[in-house]
Amino acid sequence: MKRVHGGDWAGFEEEYGCAPLDFSVNVSPLGVPDGVRRAVEETAAEADRYPDPLCRRLRGGIAEQQGIPAEWILCGNGAADLIFRGVLACRPGRALLTAPAFGEYEAALQAADCRITYYNLQEEHNFVPDERILEAISPDVDMVFLCQPGNPAGTAIPQSLLLSILERCQAAGALLVLDECFCDFLDSPEDHSLTCELSGSKNLLILRSFTKLYAMAGVRLGYCLSSDTDLLRTMALAGPPWSVSSLAQAAGLAALKEKDYVRQVRALVQTERPWLAAQLKKLGLRVCPGQANFLLFQCGVPLAEPLGKKGILLRECGSYRGLDDTWYRAAVRMHDENERLVRSLREVLSYG
Amino acid sequence: MKRVHGGDWAGFEEEYGCAPLDFSVNVSPLGVPDGVRRAVEETAAEADRYPDPLCRRLRGGIAEQQGIPAEWILCGNGAADLIFRGVLACRPGRALLTAPAFGEYEAALQAADCRITYYNLQEEHNFVPDERILEAISPDVDMVFLCQPGNPAGTAIPQSLLLSILERCQAAGALLVLDECFCDFLDSPEDHSLTCELSGSKNLLILRSFTKLYAMAGVRLGYCLSSDTDLLRTMALAGPPWSVSSLAQAAGLAALKEKDYVRQVRALVQTERPWLAAQLKKLGLRVCPGQANFLLFQCGVPLAEPLGKKGILLRECGSYRGLDDTWYRAAVRMHDENERLVRSLREVLSYG
Repeated sequence: MKRVHGGDWAGFEEEYGCAPLDFSVNVSPLGVPDGVRRAVEETAAEADRYPDPLCRRLRGGIAEQQGIPAEWILCGNGAADLIFRGVLACRPGRALLTAPAFGEYEAALQAADCRITYYNLQEEHNFVPDERILEAISPDVDMVFLCQPGNPAGTAIPQSLLLSILERCQAAGALLVLDECFCDFLDSPEDHSLTCELSGSKNLLILRSFTKLYAMAGVRLGYCLSSDTDLLRTMALAGPPWSVSSLAQAAGLAALKEKDYVRQVRALVQTERPWLAAQLKKLGLRVCPGQANFLLFQCGVPLAEPLGKKGILLRECGSYRGLDDTWYRAAVRMHDENERLVRSLREVLSYG
Repeated sequence: MKRVHGGDWAGFEEEYGCAPLDFSVNVSPLGVPDGVRRAVEETAAEADRYPDPLCRRLRGGIAEQQGIPAEWILCGNGAADLIFRGVLACRPGRALLTAPAFGEYEAALQAADCRITYYNLQEEHNFVPDERILEAISPDVDMVFLCQPGNPAGTAIPQSLLLSILERCQAAGALLVLDECFCDFLDSPEDHSLTCELSGSKNLLILRSFTKLYAMAGVRLGYCLSSDTDLLRTMALAGPPWSVSSLAQAAGLAALKEKDYVRQVRALVQTERPWLAAQLKKLGLRVCPGQANFLLFQCGVPLAEPLGKKGILLRECGSYRGLDDTWYRAAVRMHDENERLVRSLREVLSYG
């Protein structure tokens, strides 16, 4: 069975009869931070109360961390919830997507009957857009989705180009939705974020997630940032008012305090990513020079089934527009886990 | 500040400086069931995994409990999530709503630019629709929302009329969305549900919630039932794939085992509802003969502020279409809590 998203451990269990060592999702391999786990446990007993629909305390915490007003923040049931709400709030007639890109941008736009123009990212440029994307932002484009760094390639867009894109969107009257869900895994996140452009750019919507950095995929919590408070209000009305559970709100508040955890996971990724990339290259694979907590690579031998039989789940990338079945994405995990992946790959490739 | 939904304890705390005794939400007053609390606690540590987007185990459990195929079930981030998804999937041109009704039907329809016809429920009929609603289901109506029993009145629609409405919807080509979120609190739920009509009626979508019966409002979990599996598939695609957190999935599975809890809360409501209704009447208030776990009543004296100062939160009903500021809704809670409400009301009315 082809999986269109990573992390389908339940489907893997059905197919292979065991829980996978999961390289298909790009979450921190350190597991749920202790403080987050405790916050969920402590909130469970009072979960008879409705969640605060305005996420007052959590937004206060994020505002403090990010140094922006709480009014510029909207929390959602994962970043994907905010992608759908953003599209429903904007009702774009035409949107520009890169190919490949995270599938939920397209899913949300299709659910809203939006026409989509695709800007094809080039393999020879490691799937980083170049200046030609500016021409693609024509005046009839209402929304542009970009991911910094990109998913599934993990490569970062140069900051100067991002600023030109933002400017071009402003001229075209388009909203730039910049997905920074993996930005924290870059070596210097602050040099790659557009947060500092929020105050001057009402047409900028930045997506963030707790899922990846804090290994909270099962909790569902994301947020977005914009100085266009009318847009955020419309997005809040574009779905149910209690989309963020009280468990998620407590977990998010606790996560903001996990500074040691963040240092650890970032250090781990900075060490393991180059190691894993070098090992994959040694196996003769074409590896995209990703800068986040995952690596996109190409392999002519089918991997999903033989690795599945070894208990390993990879993200098959054939469902990405612009990639074919020879592409795979692997998360950067703990060293022994990465070693197991490399060892298993070596075995598969030797027999293949 | 006017609250358009119950349960805004965070706003209450901001205004009155303390947590409310909350009569504004219609959840079980017994608190989170022990098994549900434990399930959330035990799942917290593994919340680094994405939730199963298909909710396989939970849907299996619901299917067994309800005696219907798992394929007829879609789970959501609370019933409100499924209301929005249902509207996005159907894209109705015109919908029929009763007035008053739960506000999220209208919110979802407005977010989808749907024209709405209102069928005004009559106070003298205790806000129960009568046969004239059949005429209102004209051929241009694409969707009809009904709540069994009604919210905020708590009165039940006669089963014979419900069946006629379902038939009429079929003839008009309209989807009947029947919200049974409070059905479990009726004296004989099985006599008021349309679950047994699912197999013969593809135009029936039944909404259910874990929120009320199991006091799980903070967890966010609801589901819907339909034999139109194409509709459920479109609804699944009308929002993010991981809308139900793994915490909620575990909580729901545990809740299905809480049979003693359900017996207790139903017995409590059956004893306390008539007691509370009698006490409110003794205070000279007009009380609607609700059959669920809440009571709608009318009072000429403003209650929100004086009760707020006594630490009690009621649902002000002026925001419901068809009701004015003189209407209030109170949940049926534990006996001592209901006594405190009555005592506080008596004090306010004596001074007023």
